[in-house]
Amino acid sequence: MPTNRATLELFAALDRSRPEPLRAQLEDAICAAITGGGLPPGTRLPASRSLAESLHVSRGVVSEAYAQIAAEGWIEVRHGAAPVVRAVPANIKRDSPSLCSVVAEAPRLDLTATAPDLSAFPRRAWAAALRKVLAEMPDAALDYGDPRGDDELRTELAAYLVRVRGAAASPEDLVITSGYTQGLWLACRALKRRGATRVAVEDPSLDDAWGTIRSAGLEVVGVPVDEHGIDPSRLDADAVLVTPAHQFPTGAVLSPERRRALLAWGGIVLEDDYDSEYRYDRAPVGTLQRLAPDRVVYLGTTSKTLAPALRLGWLLAPKDLTEAIAQERWAVDSGGPAINARAYARLIATGEVDRHLRRTRREYRERRDLLVEALTRQLPSCTVDGVAAGLHLLLRLPPGTDEDAVVRRLAERRIRVNGLNTYRLAPKDEPALVIGYGRLSKPAIAGAVDQLELTV
Amino acid sequence: MPTNRATLELFAALDRSRPEPLRAQLEDAICAAITGGGLPPGTRLPASRSLAESLHVSRGVVSEAYAQIAAEGWIEVRHGAAPVVRAVPANIKRDSPSLCSVVAEAPRLDLTATAPDLSAFPRRAWAAALRKVLAEMPDAALDYGDPRGDDELRTELAAYLVRVRGAAASPEDLVITSGYTQGLWLACRALKRRGATRVAVEDPSLDDAWGTIRSAGLEVVGVPVDEHGIDPSRLDADAVLVTPAHQFPTGAVLSPERRRALLAWGGIVLEDDYDSEYRYDRAPVGTLQRLAPDRVVYLGTTSKTLAPALRLGWLLAPKDLTEAIAQERWAVDSGGPAINARAYARLIATGEVDRHLRRTRREYRERRDLLVEALTRQLPSCTVDGVAAGLHLLLRLPPGTDEDAVVRRLAERRIRVNGLNTYRLAPKDEPALVIGYGRLSKPAIAGAVDQLELTV
Repeated sequence: MPTNRATLELFAALDRSRPEPLRAQLEDAICAAITGGGLPPGTRLPASRSLAESLHVSRGVVSEAYAQIAAEGWIEVRHGAAPVVRAVPANIKRDSPSLCSVVAEAPRLDLTATAPDLSAFPRRAWAAALRKVLAEMPDAALDYGDPRGDDELRTELAAYLVRVRGAAASPEDLVITSGYTQGLWLACRALKRRGATRVAVEDPSLDDAWGTIRSAGLEVVGVPVDEHGIDPSRLDADAVLVTPAHQFPTGAVLSPERRRALLAWGGIVLEDDYDSEYRYDRAPVGTLQRLAPDRVVYLGTTSKTLAPALRLGWLLAPKDLTEAIAQERWAVDSGGPAINARAYARLIATGEVDRHLRRTRREYRERRDLLVEALTRQLPSCTVDGVAAGLHLLLRLPPGTDEDAVVRRLAERRIRVNGLNTYRLAPKDEPALVIGYGRLSKPAIAGAVDQLELTV
Repeated sequence: MPTNRATLELFAALDRSRPEPLRAQLEDAICAAITGGGLPPGTRLPASRSLAESLHVSRGVVSEAYAQIAAEGWIEVRHGAAPVVRAVPANIKRDSPSLCSVVAEAPRLDLTATAPDLSAFPRRAWAAALRKVLAEMPDAALDYGDPRGDDELRTELAAYLVRVRGAAASPEDLVITSGYTQGLWLACRALKRRGATRVAVEDPSLDDAWGTIRSAGLEVVGVPVDEHGIDPSRLDADAVLVTPAHQFPTGAVLSPERRRALLAWGGIVLEDDYDSEYRYDRAPVGTLQRLAPDRVVYLGTTSKTLAPALRLGWLLAPKDLTEAIAQERWAVDSGGPAINARAYARLIATGEVDRHLRRTRREYRERRDLLVEALTRQLPSCTVDGVAAGLHLLLRLPPGTDEDAVVRRLAERRIRVNGLNTYRLAPKDEPALVIGYGRLSKPAIAGAVDQLELTV
């Protein structure tokens, strides 16, 4: 039996003198063996009864551990059969130099705020759209194309953004990009051409965006965010990057007064509409772009709704910026891949995007409800914020908690999560965790909250 | 019959006082009606006999015109049936701001040097690879990935480049890019980080590359090319972009002495291996990268072999540049689309890339032979150069010819071709046309050379 050595290792890993329950230790040990290669995909694990005997623990400890890591996607438990290591562990290799996670090895649970559920990716629909597009698209569409991106997608997407987000969108003003990052970068480069030097960002906000703005040759300045969002009266920059519908990562919604003030401000507003598709408790907040299309650059992406690996996003720019953006695009990569763009156009046109969003919105909402309920119950000294939308919430820790230490302890349990300070330009002593539930399946929520309860 | 109005327009377009043969005028008129929308795809054209009667021309004029534009892909002629306008006209919309073609409207014949035959794109193989990859890739591969690009493609491609190009390639040193342009841009940005300020380019060379280098913040300086390629003794820059195997666009092969001198030169060499896959008369020239992997950045692409719309390329960089390149990549677009990359890995692994190259190499070689033969016969006052490789040749015009005027006259006939001066930083009075045959099917060659003969 191939798992003898692994069983021995599991046995060695259990330490009755540690404060963690044996169940949690066993889960960690099995996951470690899987990511370490000791239990390759397809390996049959011992039945819970026999493993319990080998390890001198109760059978309940093993079954609960199996159930938990099955919920997390590590193994597959079939009734009456031995559990099998899955070929699809959350083996997330983000060894990007700018990724700030403290978890170096593959995490057991990924609670990163920007991570969507990859198992929900509509593989069949995407494959079918690609097949159809490849069968039908004219040869000419396989050539270099308009640097603003595929015509068909710009047409479909403009209509979609008008319908779903009330945006002021026409195909001419849309630029298809290789994801949100490139949209932001291109907009910044076009602004720099016009003499811009400083871009304000919300503090806290997504840290990767700071590097992108700097890479475009602009200075990043932070403006504090409170419960009403960013305060436009404190802006001293040529442009500002905002997440008005659901501030990342605090979840604040920009108040009506501040929306007005922001629109009255003289600079360019870069509107990151990163998670408007997932709004649970009321109608989505309208876009700023609709109210001032001549001063707002609207940025969207499929990374939260479909998968980051598509690298497909878009921007809607004021007419006087579009030409410069197209020129920059041509110079840096000669435009984007047309087949993918056209396949996404097809997903919109056939209603598949809407269907997918209805399915995933319901799923994420249920996760959010379960997670909020468990956090409120098990961590009464913490406060849960920013739950109206998106794939993450903010768990404010009791004053005086050492945020870094909590993140580090979770990392030791191979739980990847970021503290709020990760996203702050000016670190503050207001400890909080930014908890994403995009990768937290419903059955895994209870165990995750147990781990948080143990750690905080 | 839907073509009555069109027939009238064709009739109006024929002008017996013009020097062009009626056949050529008719071809132009039909193509103009197709691109203008007067003859939408699927329209049945009149039988040659009846059109000849309507137009008061001989039936032979109409049949020859039909045959020619059928060869060019505009219409489909089936025996015994009326010709039908094809859904796949060469409706090439390259309205990029930096594209320098003089043909504003859709060209009838595209003799651009960088244009591969899009009808040869292996749609079925690509669709099958995408389907397979989508069925098999783990969820984790749908996430953000390594900014150097998909692991599997880097592994397959490194082995491929070792085998086919003798490159010194390992997966760690490879970066998958969104095409050649992005590879060049990233390499330039990484060089700029190290203090580089000037990049030398061959004069003449691909004009789009100049914009890309400048966009990365570096100055472009030209170094003249002669029949032995670029002269390294004249280099005064931090890096140089070269096409040593088949200089673009003159076709010169860098001489052994100059290869040695270039490798002994102190700067970084950016080696654009744009068309090594298509070499006809002898073994491919080896890469410079193999001889000096610590000083050469090797750049490759699928745009010449498969299709520009894939936006898939790669670079092999010295180890001390790879990290900076990955960081730049992460900042500007967070990496590339993984599904496409993995599909290409599959095409390499299954031998489909090799098969495709064997097929297309044979086809392009036959075109080249026919084209060179016809040019030599019909334009004896011109010289044909640079025919050993690639998808283009250089047609040197008789001294004193006004190159611009020839290009303009061809444009009036809606033939898209660039003069050599398009590619020169310092224009010269050595008139030549850079003629691509990637989009020139064998049956269309005779007509194309007729047009050149009429024009030059």
